[in-house]
Order: sequence, then C-alpha cells, then structure tokens
Amino acid sequence: MTDLRIADVRVTPIAFYDPPLLNNAGCHQPFALRSIIEVETEDGVIGLGESYGTKDVLAGLAALAPAMRGLAVTDLNGLWFRTAKALPDAPTRLTLRVGGAIEVAMWDALGKATNQRVVDLLGGPVRETVPFSAYLFYKFARHAGANEDDPWGEVLSPEQLVGEAQRMVDEYGFDAIKLKAGVLEPEAEIAGLEALRAAFPDAPLRIDPNGGWHVHTTLNLLPRLEGLVEYLEDPTVGIAGNAVIQAATDVPLATNMYVVEPSHLPPNMAQDAFRVILSDHHYWGGLKASRDLSEICRIWGLGLSMHSNSHMGISLAAMAHLAAATPNLTYDCDTHYPWQTDEVIEGGKLKVQGGALKLPEGPGLGVTLDRDALARLHGNFRALDYDVRDDLSEMHKHWPDWKYGRPKF
Amino acid sequence: MTDLRIADVRVTPIAFYDPPLLNNAGCHQPFALRSIIEVETEDGVIGLGESYGTKDVLAGLAALAPAMRGLAVTDLNGLWFRTAKALPDAPTRLTLRVGGAIEVAMWDALGKATNQRVVDLLGGPVRETVPFSAYLFYKFARHAGANEDDPWGEVLSPEQLVGEAQRMVDEYGFDAIKLKAGVLEPEAEIAGLEALRAAFPDAPLRIDPNGGWHVHTTLNLLPRLEGLVEYLEDPTVGIAGNAVIQAATDVPLATNMYVVEPSHLPPNMAQDAFRVILSDHHYWGGLKASRDLSEICRIWGLGLSMHSNSHMGISLAAMAHLAAATPNLTYDCDTHYPWQTDEVIEGGKLKVQGGALKLPEGPGLGVTLDRDALARLHGNFRALDYDVRDDLSEMHKHWPDWKYGRPKF
Repeated sequence: MTDLRIADVRVTPIAFYDPPLLNNAGCHQPFALRSIIEVETEDGVIGLGESYGTKDVLAGLAALAPAMRGLAVTDLNGLWFRTAKALPDAPTRLTLRVGGAIEVAMWDALGKATNQRVVDLLGGPVRETVPFSAYLFYKFARHAGANEDDPWGEVLSPEQLVGEAQRMVDEYGFDAIKLKAGVLEPEAEIAGLEALRAAFPDAPLRIDPNGGWHVHTTLNLLPRLEGLVEYLEDPTVGIAGNAVIQAATDVPLATNMYVVEPSHLPPNMAQDAFRVILSDHHYWGGLKASRDLSEICRIWGLGLSMHSNSHMGISLAAMAHLAAATPNLTYDCDTHYPWQTDEVIEGGKLKVQGGALKLPEGPGLGVTLDRDALARLHGNFRALDYDVRDDLSEMHKHWPDWKYGRPKF
Repeated sequence: MTDLRIADVRVTPIAFYDPPLLNNAGCHQPFALRSIIEVETEDGVIGLGESYGTKDVLAGLAALAPAMRGLAVTDLNGLWFRTAKALPDAPTRLTLRVGGAIEVAMWDALGKATNQRVVDLLGGPVRETVPFSAYLFYKFARHAGANEDDPWGEVLSPEQLVGEAQRMVDEYGFDAIKLKAGVLEPEAEIAGLEALRAAFPDAPLRIDPNGGWHVHTTLNLLPRLEGLVEYLEDPTVGIAGNAVIQAATDVPLATNMYVVEPSHLPPNMAQDAFRVILSDHHYWGGLKASRDLSEICRIWGLGLSMHSNSHMGISLAAMAHLAAATPNLTYDCDTHYPWQTDEVIEGGKLKVQGGALKLPEGPGLGVTLDRDALARLHGNFRALDYDVRDDLSEMHKHWPDWKYGRPKF
C-alpha cells in the first residue's frame, strides 16, 4: 500500500517577467510574484501547486507547511483544520488562499501516487480540451526605465487594441475576447469594444472594468453594451450596486471581485446581483471547493467561468483539470498565460492551440518541475526590491497624476 | 495499475421483515423492499450499494446497470450522463435514486481497489464514530393476520412510548430521541413527547409529523413545542407552508420531505422555510451529492442531519462514512436500524453502542456481502405479492376507517 502521508511541504517564491498591463488599480510591475508548492509524500511522490507569491500568502504558507506533516494527501478536512489552527487570526480571504495552495498539490500527489489524473479524481472528464479566451489589456510599450519596447508595444487606442487582439487570436486561436477595462474613460473603452466587434464579428466579447464605473455611468452605458457583450464583469462596486445594474439589463453580470468566497454566495443569490461566477481555485480554497462552487452555480442556475491572474503552467494545468471535470462551464476560461514568457515546468510553456488547452498527459496534473527554471525564477524573486503587488505605485511611474478610484468613472 | 473500469453491475432485490410501524401515510408492510447493488471492476473488485427496492427504482437500475460497463469507478460525471441517457423520461426524483444507488457502490469499489476507506475518499474523517438517535414509532403489536405479537408490542399511548424509548436507549445508548408523528391527534402526540421529556430529562427530542399538521394547528402547538424539541420536522406541507411556521418560531424546522433534491434548495433559502436539512444519500444522488449538500448547508448556515428509511448494514455503513467525512453534522443521525432483525452483510448486524456506530474496519465501506443471506432475502422478495410500498392499504387492514391526509390534523 502506498503511503499517502505527507513527509514534507516546500514553498519556493518565484518572480517572472510581466508586461506593463493596465487595469483599474494601475499597472503591472515588471515581475509578477508567485509561489511554487511541493507536497512530498512518505513514498517520495511530489505533488505540485502554484499560488500567489505576495508577502501575506508566503507567511501563511510558511506557517502551515510544517503543520501538514503526517496528514494523508486525501485528508482535505484535515487540511482545513490545520490551516485554521496554523493561521488562527487570518481573515477568511487569506485562509482560503493558503489552504487552497496546498490543496492543489495534495491532489497532484494523490494522482501521481495512484496513477490517476486530477481530472479523474475530481469526478471524471467531461472534456479533454479546455477553451480559453483572449485576455486583452491596455498597456504601455515598456516598463518605466526599460531600454526598449516589449513585443506587444503600446496599446491605448482602439486600433492598437484590435492589433493586440489580432496577434493573440492568430497565435492561440482564441474564440472569445475579453477586455480588461476601468482604465480609460468608459466611452473610450466601449469604442475599443466596438472596434473589436467590427474586426471580429463573431467573437463573444466581454469587458471587465473591475468595479471602476459608477452605477449611473453603467446604467447609461447599458444600451451600448447590450448586444455587444456576452457578459459584463464587475462594472461597479459591491453586490448591492451591481444588483441595481443586473435588475436593469438582460446582459448577465459576472464577477471575480465580489463573490470570491463561500460567504458571499447567499447575499448574491438573495439580491440577484451576479449571474455568472468567475471561479478561481487560488482564492476559492482549491479544487474541491471550486467543484463545490460549480455545483452551487448549477443548482442556482448561474453561469460559470474561470478567472485568472499572471501565472505559470502549474496553475494552468490545475485550471484545465478543474474545468475538464466541470460539466457546467458555460463560458471560455480567462488566462493571462499568453502574457507570460517564462515557465517553471519541464518542457516549457504548455501549448494553447485552437483557443484551447489539451489536458497535459500523465498522472496528477501532468506537469513536473524544471528545477533549473525554479532556481532561476527564485533568483528573480530574491533580487526584487518589493514583496507585495503594488499596481498603483507602478502606474505613477508612467502617469504621475493617475488617481485610483473604485468606482472612478 | 489497477483497472478501475466497471465490468458488471448486478442488482438483487431483497425483502426483510419490518415491524408494523405507523406514520402519517399508514403502516409499514411486513416486509421492506430494498436493492443490493454490486459494481464489479475489470480486476474483480466488488463495490456494494444498497437502495430502495420498489418497482420504479428496480426498473431504473435494470436500465442503467448494463450501460455502466466500461466506465471508471471514479467517473461520477460519466455516471450522471449515462443515468440521464438510460432514463431519458424519468423524473429527477427517480434519476437521483437510481444513479445514487450505483454511485455508492462505485465509491466502495474505488476504496477496495485502492485500499482506502470511503471516508478518506470523501475528504477524510472528522470523527471515527457517528452518533445516531433513537427513532420511536407508534406501532401495532403485530402485523395483520400474524399469530403473535412482535417483541416491541403495541405502542399507542404515552406510557407505551416511554417503554419503547427506554428499551431502545438501554439497548443502544442513544442520546437524542425522535418521534415519528402525524399518526394520532397532535395533542396526543405532544402528550407523548412530554412523557418522553419527563422520563428523559436531558435527551434532545424531535418530532416528525410528516406534513400531517395544518399551518394553523402547528401555530397553535408552537408554545408547547418551544423548549421541548431541538427541531420540528416537516410539521406541514410544502416550503411555503413551513416558511409561515418558521417565521413564527425560533425552533428550527427540519425537512426530509420538501427539500429533497438540489432544485429545492434555492426556494428554501429564498423563503427561509427549513433551517435543518435531513440529508439522505439514497435520494439526494449519492455520497458526493450529499457532501455537496453539506457544504451548501455550511455556507448558508443551515443545520444538517441525516434521514433514514428501513435499511440494512450497507446503507448504515455508507451513512456512517458520509457522516464521518462531514464536519458540519449538527444533529445525531436518524436510523431505522434497531427495527431491523435481518442482515445482508457478513458478520451480521453492525453494533451501535453508546448511541454511535464506529466506522466498520477495512477499505471501502468496510462491509462485505453474506451471499447466503442475500439469497435468502432475495427469496423473501420473490415470495411477496407486492412490489411497491403501500402503507395505506396496510393500515386499512388494522383500522379500516383510517383516512389519509397531508395535512390531516
């Protein structure tokens, strides 16, 4: 009998290059912070996870990791008891991130130890390829102080946006297109969407102002958005504010900001605010909690898709296995993956083709660590002079007068 | 690598002696009908399940069983696709019963094939012993036409009820006590409860009229029930009717009648009708769906316990593994098990001691089939002249003037 007990949990913070992408909070910093989690069983099987690499999550993982020894990798109840015990004063938000990071590695270890894929452990595959969407950002041509433009160049106008989309669709074959908004004046962003519609007549479009619009602004914009987008993501702040908007339109509202942990579900259902949940196993509490969320969406008749942050291939593989085991995935998933140039897994970047990722082959998540790459990316992390994400300060290097506001417009 | 694909699914209907227990629908027939499910993998591992043995469920199982061949025992998504395909016109109620019956056997097979207990596969044990409650019934001394009284004798008065409770508590050590009601006039049944309170001052009490009381009757009875019961189960009919009662009292309302499949959850939450769900993997769609239900109860702040029908040890083991993996089991589970004298598993009846069942040892559910007993109980089934449950006709053999009503009083 395989010994499924955990012998060791290792966490390695990494940093990888990220382009100067814009959003309602500011501008992405030159390096994105992540953590790579290894759960090693008594038999030497190593399960992998990937999560946030910011200071609070790393501190939480450091507290929880030694407490995981001796637990079976199947024991998710035990994981959450130990997480609560290791982080007695942490907010739910952090508890879910820390426990969820290790949970994914437990599934991977179980799969690798028993020669089963994670998709099988999560209930079986309903698809072998998972559809993703093009994720467009406004962006600067280069990071502040950089010597040359990145390959994507500046994207601030509708024409540049169409160019970015064309390149991304050509390269990856995406069907749906999402625009990260809340950056420019709403009129300018909707002009960008309309330019995308003209260039891609059949593409399902989405826009995500990240809570950057006032309720009255959004209500005024609805006539232009209806018929243009398949969903409207987090137009304004909070469940109550978005409920006002949802009551005024048939365009479904989606969220990855205001229904982000289980306790947000009851008020969302009671107020009929968001009709699409963009799940994310990194903050929802791992793969099991995300499967639970998908069942809740099915029962309550909500749409379901998947949110993304800047990430490597371990996260992409986990998202794909989860999505492949989820019957009611009603929209193509988001991913930042095309924006990343580096990779921490053996074989380099996973191939997104025809707008979809085929599940990596092999047991567990189907990916293994490239330890040279891990060491290099960990070196990046150690060389950085920041350990939290701060889009606002980064934005001020480009646009000193930029004002943060949520809602802003 | 173990071959987890299903080679064969066998279903054996059985019948076992059941006492003349009374409820709002009438009287239990002399034999209860069940089905024993065997899921055999390509490697010859046999997983067990137990479910209803009535005509509709048996027909559904007969349609689904051959369609299960080739599916991996991990593939719950595949199970539900095949169930829907095999039973295209079945109501959800039946689909969940049929698929759920096989689902349990799939978990048992997976556990036995990989040397893991079902509780481990369901998320890990939060308890190794599962608390059950004493389940009291009004009853006749003997079945119509029988030659002698059964060992429990007649129970129709408060004194007889206390005697039944004393015997059951003495024998099994139960803490909580539940009274199946909706049989006699409500005043008489509450007098029974009050006699139980006097005889068992510290026992958590429950009463279940099975929807037999009118709203106004229940509202009038509330002052006597408050402070007397830990929950009030299905006092009247339907979600809306019970919501009127819940709005009038702090005693939580529980249900196993009106929130019995996923689609009933949203209206229940919206109307704040029932605050305790009595889950039952036999009708809820199996163990995974029941774990999902427990998460939903946790998120929405509902209490959770477990409903029971007349059953054998396979069902009891499945209930126990499920309850052992469920952190938020807020009340002791129901079980009819003390009323059963027969058994279909090796080693005879599982031992309930100190009001609790220790999880059976060994992989999977920890129980194996006694094939001689199975053959004998199958013989019972074949010898019967009924294939559906009909408490009303049985009642008329005793009390010809009995009128069915829901609500009745």
